Amino acid sequence: MEFKFKPIGVVHSPFKKKEDIDSEKFADSGGFDPVQGELEIFQEFEKGLKDIDGFSYLIVLFVFHKSEGYRLHTKPLLDDTLRGVFSTRSPHRPNPVGMTVVEVLERKGNRIKVSGIDMIEGTPILDIKPYTSRDQKTAIKLGWLKSKMKK
Amino acid sequence: MEFKFKPIGVVHSPFKKKEDIDSEKFADSGGFDPVQGELEIFQEFEKGLKDIDGFSYLIVLFVFHKSEGYRLHTKPLLDDTLRGVFSTRSPHRPNPVGMTVVEVLERKGNRIKVSGIDMIEGTPILDIKPYTSRDQKTAIKLGWLKSKMKK
Repeated sequence: MEFKFKPIGVVHSPFKKKEDIDSEKFADSGGFDPVQGELEIFQEFEKGLKDIDGFSYLIVLFVFHKSEGYRLHTKPLLDDTLRGVFSTRSPHRPNPVGMTVVEVLERKGNRIKVSGIDMIEGTPILDIKPYTSRDQKTAIKLGWLKSKMKK
Repeated sequence: MEFKFKPIGVVHSPFKKKEDIDSEKFADSGGFDPVQGELEIFQEFEKGLKDIDGFSYLIVLFVFHKSEGYRLHTKPLLDDTLRGVFSTRSPHRPNPVGMTVVEVLERKGNRIKVSGIDMIEGTPILDIKPYTSRDQKTAIKLGWLKSKMKK
């Protein structure tokens, strides 16, 4: 069984390559909050953006397009211990799909200005969805990540 | 540009077909919380589940495999007004990928017992990720959805 997906748009980011991302930012739950960029949705899909700016946050599903290969046990950026890849947010995973929640700043036509960008320039977007109260979870346990987070 | 993904597992759900899902549940942010099921991860990927039960919640990315076609303006389950598809969680979207946050109850080998299931039996899983403090957003605006949510 195989599924084929085509991008609906592309991320514009101040990070031009992965080395531009300070990995320390991942240890701060608000580390990427100030990082602004744009979601450019291809014009053929622009109509689908109606009503989107009523939501504070969007879930962006994207492809880690620079990722090659994966290991089931992997060392996360923030840790020196091998962890199961599905207990990490590593870009190197069986299906290299990423998920980031971004804040909507402004929509102009087919471009949405957002903050909270942790993707690199040119990242292909597969989908955007509204972040709703069903996605809000409280009192969460963070497993191995707990001692690595600074705030 | 096209991306190909293969499932890493399959959802086991009390909902055998989409008609089994009471759509009123979507109007309650905790409506699916009691719904238990299993994420069966194929054995070749089982090693990747190490450390996963340290986290309270998992983000599940899956394929709406029964979805056919989409409209850029669509009537959501909870509304009678046409909305942009990207401001809805409709299964009928350009890339029919779903995202649901589930609570981890217990892991046994390659099977993870979870609650919060809103997918149907046999749903192909593309990825699972730990839900972290970066995914927690507060004081969110819910756009058109606000008046539709009962709690």
